[in-house]
Amino acid sequence: MMKFEFYNPTRLIFGAGSLEQLGKVVSQYGKKALLVTGGGSVKKSGAFDRAVGSLKAASVSVVEFSGVEPNPRLSTVMRATELAKKEECDVVIGMGGGSVMDASKVIAATVFYKGHPRDMLMRAGKVQRLPEKALPIITVPTLAATGSEMNCGAVITIDDEEEKLKTFIKTEVLYPKVAVVDPELTITVPKIQTAYGVCDIITHVTEGYFNGIDGTPIQDRFAEGVIITVMEWGPKAVSDGSNIEARIQVQWASIVALNGWVQVGTNYSAPVHMIEHTLSALYDVPHGAGLAVVNPAWMRFAARFRPERFAQFAQRIFGISAMGKDDLSLAMEGIDRFEEFLRSIGCPTRLSELGIGEITEEMLSYWADKTLEVICDEEGKLPGRPPLRKEEIVEILRMAM
Amino acid sequence: MMKFEFYNPTRLIFGAGSLEQLGKVVSQYGKKALLVTGGGSVKKSGAFDRAVGSLKAASVSVVEFSGVEPNPRLSTVMRATELAKKEECDVVIGMGGGSVMDASKVIAATVFYKGHPRDMLMRAGKVQRLPEKALPIITVPTLAATGSEMNCGAVITIDDEEEKLKTFIKTEVLYPKVAVVDPELTITVPKIQTAYGVCDIITHVTEGYFNGIDGTPIQDRFAEGVIITVMEWGPKAVSDGSNIEARIQVQWASIVALNGWVQVGTNYSAPVHMIEHTLSALYDVPHGAGLAVVNPAWMRFAARFRPERFAQFAQRIFGISAMGKDDLSLAMEGIDRFEEFLRSIGCPTRLSELGIGEITEEMLSYWADKTLEVICDEEGKLPGRPPLRKEEIVEILRMAM
Repeated sequence: MMKFEFYNPTRLIFGAGSLEQLGKVVSQYGKKALLVTGGGSVKKSGAFDRAVGSLKAASVSVVEFSGVEPNPRLSTVMRATELAKKEECDVVIGMGGGSVMDASKVIAATVFYKGHPRDMLMRAGKVQRLPEKALPIITVPTLAATGSEMNCGAVITIDDEEEKLKTFIKTEVLYPKVAVVDPELTITVPKIQTAYGVCDIITHVTEGYFNGIDGTPIQDRFAEGVIITVMEWGPKAVSDGSNIEARIQVQWASIVALNGWVQVGTNYSAPVHMIEHTLSALYDVPHGAGLAVVNPAWMRFAARFRPERFAQFAQRIFGISAMGKDDLSLAMEGIDRFEEFLRSIGCPTRLSELGIGEITEEMLSYWADKTLEVICDEEGKLPGRPPLRKEEIVEILRMAM
Repeated sequence: MMKFEFYNPTRLIFGAGSLEQLGKVVSQYGKKALLVTGGGSVKKSGAFDRAVGSLKAASVSVVEFSGVEPNPRLSTVMRATELAKKEECDVVIGMGGGSVMDASKVIAATVFYKGHPRDMLMRAGKVQRLPEKALPIITVPTLAATGSEMNCGAVITIDDEEEKLKTFIKTEVLYPKVAVVDPELTITVPKIQTAYGVCDIITHVTEGYFNGIDGTPIQDRFAEGVIITVMEWGPKAVSDGSNIEARIQVQWASIVALNGWVQVGTNYSAPVHMIEHTLSALYDVPHGAGLAVVNPAWMRFAARFRPERFAQFAQRIFGISAMGKDDLSLAMEGIDRFEEFLRSIGCPTRLSELGIGEITEEMLSYWADKTLEVICDEEGKLPGRPPLRKEEIVEILRMAM
C-alpha cells in the first residue's frame, strides 16, 4: 500500500537553445561561479565558451575546474572544493555528464561540511552524517543518461589509500536549484555513448519497475511509457546524432527516468546499479555498458521470483502475446527481446565484452563482496526483489558471462 | 518541439494515516494557523477534530474559518483574509475539497496583496497584477478530484456587485509548502461525489492530451496511464467507498493528473474546464457533473480537427481495433466508449440532466459569452485545439443537449 513522501524543488528549463539562459539563471543565485567540467568535450563543442559568455554577460564571474573523470573520485571533489573555498565561489555549475554533475553536487555540499566528506557517503548500508547545507547548484547536462540534473543523488568513488569504493549519496540539499537542459548540447555525443545513455535511462526505470512494491499501477504505466518511448527514439538518436527531435525525446526521458516521478512511492532499490558500480569502479567500464551486461542477467534471475511482473513487461513493452504461455516463459521471452534491443543499438550484453580480460570465479566472488560493502540490509543482503545473498550475486554475474 | 519551464516545490506526504503528521508539518511553518474548511463534512467525519488535535499537540494554535462554499467566492476569501490578518495567522491550512484548498491559496496571497484581490485573477485573458508573496499554505484534501493540493492554481468566483465571473489564478507563490494527503479521509465521500471526482481527474488529463502540442510521446503515455488507472480503480471507489486501496489509487491519480507531471511541456489549454466553469458559476452545477456533460461534446467537435489523436485515445485507452476504420470513425467509437464509462459510474452526460431547466439558444449564447469573458486569445477565441469562436462554443453546447 502506497505511503511515501515526495519532494523535488529543482526548476527545470528545458529546450533547444536554453543554454543561452544560463547566465541569467545563475545570477539569481550568486556572483562567482565554480564552473565544473569533465574531460574537455564541452570545450571542443564550443558549449563551454557559450556558457562562459552567457555568464559574463550576466556579470557572473567564473572559476574553472575542469577534468572531472568518469566515475568521479572523492579526491577530485576535494580538490575542487578547496578551489571553491579559496576563490569564495557562491554557486556551483556542473556542466557535463553524470560524473560532472554528481561531483558538482558533492563539491557544493563539501564546502560547508565539517570533517571528511567520505562520512557523507553510503558505506555498508550506512551513512555517518549527511550534509545539512550546500552552495546553490546549477546543472547543465551534455549527455542524456543519468538524470542527475534533476535529482538529489550523486555517485562518487572513494579513492583513499585505505579505501576504494564506488558509492553514493542521496539527500535533499543536493537538489539543483535549476537544471538548464539544452538537448542541442547532446548533438555531438558519439554513437556508442548515446547508446550507453539509452541503456542507463531504461535501467533507471526497470530498477523501480521490478524492485518496487506491488500496487502502483500509475507508476507502472509511467515506467512503461518511458521505456517504450526510449526504445522508439533511442535508436534514432544513435543512428543519427544530429536528429534533434530524437535528442529531445531521449533527453526528456533521461530526466523523468530518475527525477522521482516514475519511482515515487514504489520504495524501490537498484541492485543492478549496485552490481554494475563495482565493475565500473574496478575496471573503468562505462556505466551504461556495464548495465547492459548486468541487467539482462539480473532480470533472468529475478524473474523466477516475480514472473507475473516480468510477464507484464513482456506484454506491455513488446506486445508479446501471452497465449498458451506461463508467466515465466513469457517473462523470459520479454527479457530476450530486451537483450536483443540492447545489442541492436550496439551495447555489449556479456561480461566478456567489457575488456576486463579473463574472468575467474574468484573475481566474481570479489565483485560480490565489493558490492555488499556499499549497501546491504540487516541480513547482509543486497536490497531488491529478491534481496540478494553474496552467492546469488555471483550466480547473476555468472549468468552474464 | 518541447521547450518549457517546470517547477513544483510542494512536498507531498501521501498515505493512509498521514493526517497524524499535520501538526508536526505545520509547526515547521508557523505557530498560528488559519484552518479553512467547507460545509461541515470534515466535522461530521471526525477529521476536523483529529486535525486540531494534531495541531495542538504540536503547539500550533488554530483559528477556524469554516463555510467555504463550492465554487468559492472572492467575498468569502476576503472575509477569511480579514480574519487571518486580525488574528495574525502565519500559516494557512486548507482542509477540504478543491474549493477549500483554492480559497486557502488565495487567502494566503491576499493577506499581503495591496489593492483589490480581483486584480490577481484572470479576466478576458489578462491579469492586472499577480501576487508576489503568500503565507505558507498547507493542503489537506478530503476528496480525490481537483489535484489542487499539489499545484499552484486556484479557481475563484468573483461575486462583486458589478461583476460575476468564475475565473482563476495560477502563480508560483500559491504552491502549497506541503500537501498532507490521507486517502482515509475520502472514505466518507458519497458515491456521486466520488464519481464526479473521477470525471474531474480524467478531464484534467484529457485537456492536456487533446489540447497540447504534438511530439510529446512520454506525456501521452503518462496521460494514458492515469486515465486507464482511473477507469480501473474509479468504479471500485464508487461502488465501495470503503475500499481503501481504490481510494488510494484514485487519490494518487488525482494528484498526478494536475501536479504538472502529465501536462509538462505540452503547452496545453483547458477549454472544457473553461466552458464548464460558466455552468457551475451560473447554476452551482457540481464541477465534475458539468465536465461529464461538456467533455464528450467537446471531444466530438474537436475530433474533426485532430482525428489521429482521438484515434490514438480509442486504441490505447479502450483497445479498440483500428482495422478497416478511418481515424474519425475510430475516434468517435472511443468517445462513445468514454461517454458510456461516465454514465456507468453515474455521471450525467447531457445538459438536460443538470437541473438547469429549459435551455434556450439565448442561454447557450450567453454561456459562450461568459466563457470568453474569462479567457480568450488575441482573436477573441477560447484557447485550445482548435481555438473556439463563440459560435463554435455554442455548437459544442448544442451537441451536449
